[in-house]
Amino acid sequence: MAKYGARLVFPIDVKKKPWEQKLPLHNRWHPDIPPVAEVTTGELFRIEMVDFSGGRITQENSAEDIKHADPSIVHYLSGPIKILDKEGTPAKPGDLLVVEICNLGPLPGDEWGFTATFDRENGGSFLTDHFPCATKAIWYFEGIYAYSPHIPGVRFPGLTHPGVVGTAPSMELLNIWNERERDVEENGLKSFKLCEVLHSRPLANLPSTKGCHLGKIQKGTPEWEKIAKEAARTIPGRENGGNCDIKNLSRGSKVYLPVFVEGANLSTGDMHFSQGDGEVAFCGAIEMSGFLELKCEIIRGGMKEYLTPMGPTPLHVSPIFEIGPVEPRFSEWLVFEGISVDEGGRQHYLDASVAYKRAVLNAIDYLSKFGYSKEQMYLLLSCCPCEGRISGIVDAPNALATLAIPTAIFDQDIRPKPSKVPVGPRVVRTPDVLKCTYDGNLPITKNPSAMS
Amino acid sequence: MAKYGARLVFPIDVKKKPWEQKLPLHNRWHPDIPPVAEVTTGELFRIEMVDFSGGRITQENSAEDIKHADPSIVHYLSGPIKILDKEGTPAKPGDLLVVEICNLGPLPGDEWGFTATFDRENGGSFLTDHFPCATKAIWYFEGIYAYSPHIPGVRFPGLTHPGVVGTAPSMELLNIWNERERDVEENGLKSFKLCEVLHSRPLANLPSTKGCHLGKIQKGTPEWEKIAKEAARTIPGRENGGNCDIKNLSRGSKVYLPVFVEGANLSTGDMHFSQGDGEVAFCGAIEMSGFLELKCEIIRGGMKEYLTPMGPTPLHVSPIFEIGPVEPRFSEWLVFEGISVDEGGRQHYLDASVAYKRAVLNAIDYLSKFGYSKEQMYLLLSCCPCEGRISGIVDAPNALATLAIPTAIFDQDIRPKPSKVPVGPRVVRTPDVLKCTYDGNLPITKNPSAMS
Amino acid sequence: MAKYGARLVFPIDVKKKPWEQKLPLHNRWHPDIPPVAEVTTGELFRIEMVDFSGGRITQENSAEDIKHADPSIVHYLSGPIKILDKEGTPAKPGDLLVVEICNLGPLPGDEWGFTATFDRENGGSFLTDHFPCATKAIWYFEGIYAYSPHIPGVRFPGLTHPGVVGTAPSMELLNIWNERERDVEENGLKSFKLCEVLHSRPLANLPSTKGCHLGKIQKGTPEWEKIAKEAARTIPGRENGGNCDIKNLSRGSKVYLPVFVEGANLSTGDMHFSQGDGEVAFCGAIEMSGFLELKCEIIRGGMKEYLTPMGPTPLHVSPIFEIGPVEPRFSEWLVFEGISVDEGGRQHYLDASVAYKRAVLNAIDYLSKFGYSKEQMYLLLSCCPCEGRISGIVDAPNALATLAIPTAIFDQDIRPKPSKVPVGPRVVRTPDVLKCTYDGNLPITKNPSAMS
Amino acid sequence: MAKYGARLVFPIDVKKKPWEQKLPLHNRWHPDIPPVAEVTTGELFRIEMVDFSGGRITQENSAEDIKHADPSIVHYLSGPIKILDKEGTPAKPGDLLVVEICNLGPLPGDEWGFTATFDRENGGSFLTDHFPCATKAIWYFEGIYAYSPHIPGVRFPGLTHPGVVGTAPSMELLNIWNERERDVEENGLKSFKLCEVLHSRPLANLPSTKGCHLGKIQKGTPEWEKIAKEAARTIPGRENGGNCDIKNLSRGSKVYLPVFVEGANLSTGDMHFSQGDGEVAFCGAIEMSGFLELKCEIIRGGMKEYLTPMGPTPLHVSPIFEIGPVEPRFSEWLVFEGISVDEGGRQHYLDASVAYKRAVLNAIDYLSKFGYSKEQMYLLLSCCPCEGRISGIVDAPNALATLAIPTAIFDQDIRPKPSKVPVGPRVVRTPDVLKCTYDGNLPITKNPSAMS
Repeated sequence: MAKYGARLVFPIDVKKKPWEQKLPLHNRWHPDIPPVAEVTTGELFRIEMVDFSGGRITQENSAEDIKHADPSIVHYLSGPIKILDKEGTPAKPGDLLVVEICNLGPLPGDEWGFTATFDRENGGSFLTDHFPCATKAIWYFEGIYAYSPHIPGVRFPGLTHPGVVGTAPSMELLNIWNERERDVEENGLKSFKLCEVLHSRPLANLPSTKGCHLGKIQKGTPEWEKIAKEAARTIPGRENGGNCDIKNLSRGSKVYLPVFVEGANLSTGDMHFSQGDGEVAFCGAIEMSGFLELKCEIIRGGMKEYLTPMGPTPLHVSPIFEIGPVEPRFSEWLVFEGISVDEGGRQHYLDASVAYKRAVLNAIDYLSKFGYSKEQMYLLLSCCPCEGRISGIVDAPNALATLAIPTAIFDQDIRPKPSKVPVGPRVVRTPDVLKCTYDGNLPITKNPSAMS
Repeated sequence: MAKYGARLVFPIDVKKKPWEQKLPLHNRWHPDIPPVAEVTTGELFRIEMVDFSGGRITQENSAEDIKHADPSIVHYLSGPIKILDKEGTPAKPGDLLVVEICNLGPLPGDEWGFTATFDRENGGSFLTDHFPCATKAIWYFEGIYAYSPHIPGVRFPGLTHPGVVGTAPSMELLNIWNERERDVEENGLKSFKLCEVLHSRPLANLPSTKGCHLGKIQKGTPEWEKIAKEAARTIPGRENGGNCDIKNLSRGSKVYLPVFVEGANLSTGDMHFSQGDGEVAFCGAIEMSGFLELKCEIIRGGMKEYLTPMGPTPLHVSPIFEIGPVEPRFSEWLVFEGISVDEGGRQHYLDASVAYKRAVLNAIDYLSKFGYSKEQMYLLLSCCPCEGRISGIVDAPNALATLAIPTAIFDQDIRPKPSKVPVGPRVVRTPDVLKCTYDGNLPITKNPSAMS
Repeated sequence: MAKYGARLVFPIDVKKKPWEQKLPLHNRWHPDIPPVAEVTTGELFRIEMVDFSGGRITQENSAEDIKHADPSIVHYLSGPIKILDKEGTPAKPGDLLVVEICNLGPLPGDEWGFTATFDRENGGSFLTDHFPCATKAIWYFEGIYAYSPHIPGVRFPGLTHPGVVGTAPSMELLNIWNERERDVEENGLKSFKLCEVLHSRPLANLPSTKGCHLGKIQKGTPEWEKIAKEAARTIPGRENGGNCDIKNLSRGSKVYLPVFVEGANLSTGDMHFSQGDGEVAFCGAIEMSGFLELKCEIIRGGMKEYLTPMGPTPLHVSPIFEIGPVEPRFSEWLVFEGISVDEGGRQHYLDASVAYKRAVLNAIDYLSKFGYSKEQMYLLLSCCPCEGRISGIVDAPNALATLAIPTAIFDQDIRPKPSKVPVGPRVVRTPDVLKCTYDGNLPITKNPSAMS
Repeated sequence: MAKYGARLVFPIDVKKKPWEQKLPLHNRWHPDIPPVAEVTTGELFRIEMVDFSGGRITQENSAEDIKHADPSIVHYLSGPIKILDKEGTPAKPGDLLVVEICNLGPLPGDEWGFTATFDRENGGSFLTDHFPCATKAIWYFEGIYAYSPHIPGVRFPGLTHPGVVGTAPSMELLNIWNERERDVEENGLKSFKLCEVLHSRPLANLPSTKGCHLGKIQKGTPEWEKIAKEAARTIPGRENGGNCDIKNLSRGSKVYLPVFVEGANLSTGDMHFSQGDGEVAFCGAIEMSGFLELKCEIIRGGMKEYLTPMGPTPLHVSPIFEIGPVEPRFSEWLVFEGISVDEGGRQHYLDASVAYKRAVLNAIDYLSKFGYSKEQMYLLLSCCPCEGRISGIVDAPNALATLAIPTAIFDQDIRPKPSKVPVGPRVVRTPDVLKCTYDGNLPITKNPSAMS
């Protein structure tokens, strides 16, 4: 009789704190974080994980938790997992690790999640200059569907995926990361003026001992001190995969990850019940605890075979993904466009980030005409299965980005009507999202033409 | 007996030059270009159009035509069309014009197209620093399918669409455009360092009498002189729609365009048999002559009702699009990722344009392992139905963009193989694309880690 | 410079009668009908065709034409086309002919069609015992869309396809057909009681000189007399393909047809702008004139290689089809079920035809609650892109069939509403379909439980 | 803080026998089987269930269990569940019960299933005259994927659904069922000759005390004796829903069930990991234990509002289904056709069951050319996500049915190849399905033209 079902290699008890789990979590990338489990190629295994905040964001009816969230603690990851082939030989640097996502979902008994924006002083979000306050919406799951009491009239199936899946970097790669990110943090405002438009702070998140968890490495030991000062933060996606936030990386997908250290040291976390392209609210998917059922293969020497480095070293590579037929397919979309002219009317040069900002702002304004607050729509567009596209990137000076929203997720027809223009005061859908005050001093970007 | 079939309002004879057509073409946006035809809401009408170059790019077996193409002449547009309601009242400023695309295609007897990159001295393309030469591939159509003798082993159905569809700007809007684009042209290098990475030139395309066509306005008249100096170039998409290059704007789609002048003055052109998101090669769709069958509605006062301006004036709006169930749907995709670290290894801040550049470079390198030249894959990714996404835009400092390619367009399995790594020298697929030398002096961006 | 565009091998002038066309049409299957054109494998060619009735059903505002239609004249086919390989060797018996549908559509200038039921005395339809009258709805095309003034509130994109595509039978195969069909015509009522429930007449359509057209064979010659008495009628689909009425056989599909005579002698006709699975109204697609752009390949010896005969002789084979990604995809469906219990409450044994009849009756009754006449919905379900499935065929005694309707084709939400049950008299949508009286004597099947 | 997660109302312990479960199962339809639980509209609840056989078909490496399976015991159902509205008023006869499937899957720890054919003496299957032996394939699940060691080279995502979901019949409806089914059992061979071609036995499954389970009704009591003699068997789908075997009734679907008794008394069972249209092998889905997460609404008076009876009484109704965007979507299909001519070459009249039999036989023969046994393909086509369509039902005398198979489920390209005809002896894929001898005396239908 064959074996079946997934072997649980990383258990989570959501009633316990992150640091009380049976296997220790980690929230940094470093080659010296030791593996906590081993799996063999071809084997189906299960990894459970806490939500990215390790339970600090709660179901409480207030956004105070997100306002005061400590960004140093993200993302609590499960792993590292050491990958061996059937002969027991570990994955080696230069191999390609194929990770197939056979199943995933929320943890049984914990079927809820949240979408939120950080306060502008505390990380902000894509539109933090327009929406500087911390806000939060709670989502409850009914099987494959999510609904939020804070965004009435919307319900959609989840395109569930892990926000973070990656291999451990080698020391050489880690140094490359730290160097280039330090450079932008220290010199950013001089060299790259894009941050005049995109306001989230800080510019980069450099290594920091604050809030650092390193798995089996005991806090306070000299080893911990050394590694904590070197280990990369998990916020940006990088050469090892990591926080890719690719919303279609759901059931039936594959990731081809480069291997930089012996055993590959696969880690994963930051489960999303659903996310829109861009995850614009930053804490912006439907964040939750969850589980993955995975199966790995090793392509020996696959980095050289399949990945071409692009950059100064052979380590400057990118993972590849494969998306299959198993995802919700909508057939009708409303599409909002943005060009690279900012809210002040200034022309930017082929800047897809600015164009996408405009597309998202346009979509929020449009949808708010149907009885919603702008904060409701901002959170919604961050977590519903909307598609963000770079439609034109060559027609100087305008980049053109689009945001496509499946119309079926609303309980009303949101398309413009040629015959029946909606009239009269629109019913505002309540309750609104949970919201804090913004107590900082940074100026807000106002839309000079906005009606209200 | 009811009327049926589309009324031809703008005929094209592809054997004639653009300036010899029965109705005059135009290649600028200006409120004073007079309409050449009228249509009524609800009426099905047909507009034919030359290719964007007006026939200057030919089927000749050489890329010399694209190398020496005069960028001042794009895009030859058909129109303007004045839109009236059933009572004969024209569309008014403040209305929303609904344009439904009921059908489209190549012009009968002219079933071919081309994809090309301009020489770097002459407009370039998204990756012009890597690919400075003018290149060209010819495509032939077999009904809904396109194949190219210059890119063997690839065949795909067209997601055919018009690159340009827009309404005429008002004088006020035109002045806004010219002012902000002049600013970037004159001050660009100081303020926006993105152009250190994106190398296409010029930074903006300002009004110019050179190559200017203004429809019924006779060349050489004082009126022509005045308008030609004011009229906006058609290269960038703007508030009036225009060169949106939205690849899904195909059969069964709708565009909701703001109306700025009486009659709306709808113009269209630049038909694409197919295009990838971004149109990275610049002259980058499968460019062709073609026809549109359209139906219009007017939503009176719809701009105020449905569009919220974002910017200093009520004119800073964006069109909306609606995509329906009628398009090719692929179920398997290979996805390439890019982060906002450039080829030199420098960190950029949340820059989706840089991230997309990396994603495209990664995809080209990968696909070239299957027997193709990089130029072949560059042109292919510009014109096949691939999807360019902004996957992450908040995980500072890295923006993360993805490029998803439907695997079914290749005659071989292009996925990485866990078991059978391809070995030995790969067969190069020939012939290659048509190609000129690059005779300029600008430095080329080299990938320090490239194998060849 | 390469050739492109399709070569027109069979032209049609819709202003002329079927027998006045440049190339002669035929409406029978026989090996001795001579080819009227030749094409080579790999070549893109165009065949035009009249509608199945050869223009006898008109746009007149009356159903008299369908009531008195002469069923002996269907289907006017274009062809036969002789297929040769690139060396000039014709397809041979035993080969497999691959026919790729590269494009298709209505004939320019003739963008309309009709859906109809025959009078019960004159062929009837699937539900002729419930709907014995001749009825007709006219459809007009707006590009890819069809709408009917006789069925208001419905509009849908066409999944256009040829109803008939087939190769010529050999004499041996023709004899098999005639023998088995004569048997059912002569002995049907004794052996097969299904016809107690399915009421269309006659049971089979045997060879007949009446209304016979044999292409180049001159009417009245001895050869014509001989062939006309042998040649098979085109109504049923058979081993050679023929009247398959497979609604998904649209752009981008392939048919693998067995070859029975030298040259294959491919014929096609009966273009459908759209059809539902089953084509229940009999004259039941949106019937139109049209064109096909095809490309052929020959698989030498492919019948033996790929087809297994099922029956007494090696000729008892069936064609194979291949459906690709290019068709409208709806994402929401309302599904009606039928079991093999007839309207009188009698139990039938695993009879999918009876089950499907019930499913269609259920769907008609349901949809008529939304303001439609039953005749409107009967014609609609015959021609819209609905799916008819055999869901269960083993759960004795009930076969279970389903009919799935894409909800997006209606301008109202047709789903049952949990909260808002529709109340009051529903608005009847007018005008109704065109309709004649039924003057025959056959009893009508009444639904004893029907409300009206 | 809101409640979330599904309330478990019917638990199953797969280590226990069906009659040892905490809540008693039942395997008959009868109004007097008492409800075992209550749920309120709007509430998310979970029902677990054993596989249809209650664990009698095992993972043993033999088909003896299926050969000797006792058909009297199917299907073990979980329920009845009484449905109340939020005020506590139960569903009433005449209401419509809306059941939304929010989630479903195999029971954790029991991730396997089986597909089988019964021995011809013991129920048979759709093609039992060709395949009279009992056969079995075991499937193991890797998350959403199933693979079978007995059918190598195939793997597909499950379109998981419950085979049986229904409400309790009223006594009046039950009497109608028993009467009409007894009639076919007793008179079948005289009136309906279809069973000359479809060979499964018995013709109907009448009430029987043998193997009967009636939930809370104690076996051996007079009440049990009475009900057992009246209660309908669960094999056929009927007016109450029941064994519909609609393969697309998966996550995100809705069923609209008529209510015949107070409280509706909803029962469900017979979970399928995956099934093809028709479920041709009879025990033919991937049968498994599993769970459903459901949410109910009541449409008061909805039967009259939305369902039109078709038959002698107001009880002759059919449920309605709604299918949403959440299912695997394949984009490439190979389609096999069958006409209503049987294997002996005899013509049948518009018989979709005969046509579908031919289509399935054709598909089995074709696929067996790629290295499979016919038994492997028979089981595969019964359980993989293939579509069975009634393509033509009016072209007398031939009904035309099609079977469409998604090509992506195979690890090889199964399409006919124009250029490369496969040559030489094909590798047979082993191991084969588990198989018993057929020891009965009924003749086997041979294909006179089969090669082997």
